[in-house]
Amino acid sequence: MNEIDLLISARWVIPVEPDAVVLENHAVAVRGRRIVDILPTSEALQKYPSAERQDLPRHALIPGLVNAHTHAAMSLMRGLADDLPLMTWLQAHIWPTEARWVGAEFVRDGTRLAIAEMLRGGTTCFNDMYFFPEVTARVATTLGMRASIGMIVVDFPSAWARNADEYIARGLEEVLDAHKGEGLISTCFAPHAPYTVSDAPLARIRNLADELDRPVHIHVHETRHEVDEHVAKHGLRPLARLDGLGLLGPNLVAVHMTQLEDHEIALLAARGASVVHCPQSNLKLASGFCPVAQLIEAGVNVALGTDGAASNNDLDLWDEMRTAALLAKGVAGRADAVPAHSALKMATLAGARALGLGDEIGSIEVGKAADLVAVDLGRIETQPVYEPVSHLVYAAGREAVSHVWIAGQAKLVEGELTQIDIDEVMANAAAWAARIVAADPQQA
Amino acid sequence: MNEIDLLISARWVIPVEPDAVVLENHAVAVRGRRIVDILPTSEALQKYPSAERQDLPRHALIPGLVNAHTHAAMSLMRGLADDLPLMTWLQAHIWPTEARWVGAEFVRDGTRLAIAEMLRGGTTCFNDMYFFPEVTARVATTLGMRASIGMIVVDFPSAWARNADEYIARGLEEVLDAHKGEGLISTCFAPHAPYTVSDAPLARIRNLADELDRPVHIHVHETRHEVDEHVAKHGLRPLARLDGLGLLGPNLVAVHMTQLEDHEIALLAARGASVVHCPQSNLKLASGFCPVAQLIEAGVNVALGTDGAASNNDLDLWDEMRTAALLAKGVAGRADAVPAHSALKMATLAGARALGLGDEIGSIEVGKAADLVAVDLGRIETQPVYEPVSHLVYAAGREAVSHVWIAGQAKLVEGELTQIDIDEVMANAAAWAARIVAADPQQA
Repeated sequence: MNEIDLLISARWVIPVEPDAVVLENHAVAVRGRRIVDILPTSEALQKYPSAERQDLPRHALIPGLVNAHTHAAMSLMRGLADDLPLMTWLQAHIWPTEARWVGAEFVRDGTRLAIAEMLRGGTTCFNDMYFFPEVTARVATTLGMRASIGMIVVDFPSAWARNADEYIARGLEEVLDAHKGEGLISTCFAPHAPYTVSDAPLARIRNLADELDRPVHIHVHETRHEVDEHVAKHGLRPLARLDGLGLLGPNLVAVHMTQLEDHEIALLAARGASVVHCPQSNLKLASGFCPVAQLIEAGVNVALGTDGAASNNDLDLWDEMRTAALLAKGVAGRADAVPAHSALKMATLAGARALGLGDEIGSIEVGKAADLVAVDLGRIETQPVYEPVSHLVYAAGREAVSHVWIAGQAKLVEGELTQIDIDEVMANAAAWAARIVAADPQQA
Repeated sequence: MNEIDLLISARWVIPVEPDAVVLENHAVAVRGRRIVDILPTSEALQKYPSAERQDLPRHALIPGLVNAHTHAAMSLMRGLADDLPLMTWLQAHIWPTEARWVGAEFVRDGTRLAIAEMLRGGTTCFNDMYFFPEVTARVATTLGMRASIGMIVVDFPSAWARNADEYIARGLEEVLDAHKGEGLISTCFAPHAPYTVSDAPLARIRNLADELDRPVHIHVHETRHEVDEHVAKHGLRPLARLDGLGLLGPNLVAVHMTQLEDHEIALLAARGASVVHCPQSNLKLASGFCPVAQLIEAGVNVALGTDGAASNNDLDLWDEMRTAALLAKGVAGRADAVPAHSALKMATLAGARALGLGDEIGSIEVGKAADLVAVDLGRIETQPVYEPVSHLVYAAGREAVSHVWIAGQAKLVEGELTQIDIDEVMANAAAWAARIVAADPQQA
């Protein structure tokens, strides 16, 4: 009974659930894919004397970070266009580049670049919305990365599908059906936004999501402009339209939400919907401020996302955690808003819950998958240590991530990726950039 | 005539002055402490064939970063107390800890920790305000770090001085006179804030600063509470009182400035004063939002500071650059506010100008000191590269800093400090934390 595959002992184990707990000199026992024990290291050494060990004497061990909103393949457009408002950025730069270049190979290479970056930074699960999602799922499976793959739907045609019906059909067949029961891949519906998906496909998605109990991942109220246009066209705000279509429930994963009235916050809480906060993207595109402290106080599950690397410009959840914790204080006008423990929970358990994975990942608990991240707090940048969670949020960065496990498998050891050829990934990325610039020198 | 000490060739040289220029495959020639040439690498190899070389094939070479506001020794209180408003944080945690512990040894050990952190992150000059400034100056001199040392003045007594007259006298004798003509140390007056320094010492500082042509480094309008209290007590806003005392001129280095009316922005511009923006500290303490885009558009010189590590919780100017660029967009509601080149200038040349060092540092120009930083953009987190300055601000972090030179001397080579025993610095920091916690377990 005491046979385990790995015993990870750390200076601090921060389980996230229970909330705001720091376990000093504890160990986590892993058997197969799962956490089977959490106990003081001194006891663990007696209970599991022959286990393979990973000792982390100056590290914090935390649950793997969950990036609850990204477009992984867009990492190939990192820094292509900056310092522009959302619509100019989309219409003059991102959409033309996508129209010209996005296909299965682009998504494969971009997703590999994104997964390499995310793993090095301690992200063990990402929630994706992009074209060719079956390719994203395949790359994630190959690299042993946990992913929630969005079955994207938009009204307009793309290289992947001609219309909403075809998007839905391809998603169901190539994403949902292809990954049923597969360990690391979960699926969700991903209608792009209320302004790009009309009522009929949204209604169909609602039925499918209810029937299959899948999350519905959608951009909502990203900018005031979008809300104003929606009101002009439909006579009501986007969230109200989603509610009218029956989409505002526990499966809703509403991304951005920079425009919120008090009654909308209450409604989100009452219906059990999740919000994904993307603070750096919202700032960079000047989209507005999500009222994070108010949402959390109302009881809404608020997760964190990086958005795509084209509007961030990285896939660094440490940066998002810190920005979320800091910005929430500024926006609420209260320095006690979103304390460090809250920010860490947003980046882990809240993300897991938003994706319907709250029983599987997001905290260090017996029975959950062993998605674990070690953070070296013995670097000079995090000295001295009074409170490790404070350092995780306010002082450490992704460079302090030393080890990453997903479902018990080591993905990063002493800062080195175990499974990805970085040079090849970088060469592919450089080749794409060269091609994009050569075809349209104005883009560079 | 072509004898130089070092030829640094880089994939990109970003001089900051002229503005928004990127020189591809260029080299910087260093003789003694100074930059003597900037030219294409191919020409440099012919002109300086026998020079010692540092080749940086995938790096950006930028001017050393200038941290225009910090309290270096407070790094020993990093993470001691978080998620609290300014006055609670100061009165219940920071001030009691300082009263009990701050002395020459605390300042020595804290400053060494801070300098190690700053050098590793590409900061080559810091503007300090703290007790025992002669110790800070001595540590900086010993470690070869450039520093602007504030002659601190407050009305209340401390371990360093009993009253404003004694603060001024010690500052003049132990800081200003002791470092006249010394290469790396410059000096400024540092009255703490309008609410902690009364009219008589401020008037005296104004006379001395005018006579000696030294900057006056002071916290101004950090919070609304402070402004409201000042109005109640003095019948006018702090900036107006400083103006009445003759302090609002080109020597003024006004830190924080989260509360600003339009006429005050115009006044700062007209008088040629500098503002130091500390975005992460202002967010963390919920102090308010500095209108950075408006200040820059009005022509005000806006520099960047980390503030002390106790309210940040790091001394990372990369984080400040990114937060400044992002937050300015959110606050202005315009995604084109504070573009990447502007943010880099804030962290370099604007800081130099604020400290009266605009002719000496802050840009890569012939005749200036060789304070240089190499940033490795060949890491996976910054692939692909369309525009290097975009990556410096929006994607890279301090972990990408590979080399640092101050006045031509290598301080960091391949990420390793040349002159500081990191283990000793960390052990000292841990010992201080242990002492502080043992004396008052409530502080931990």
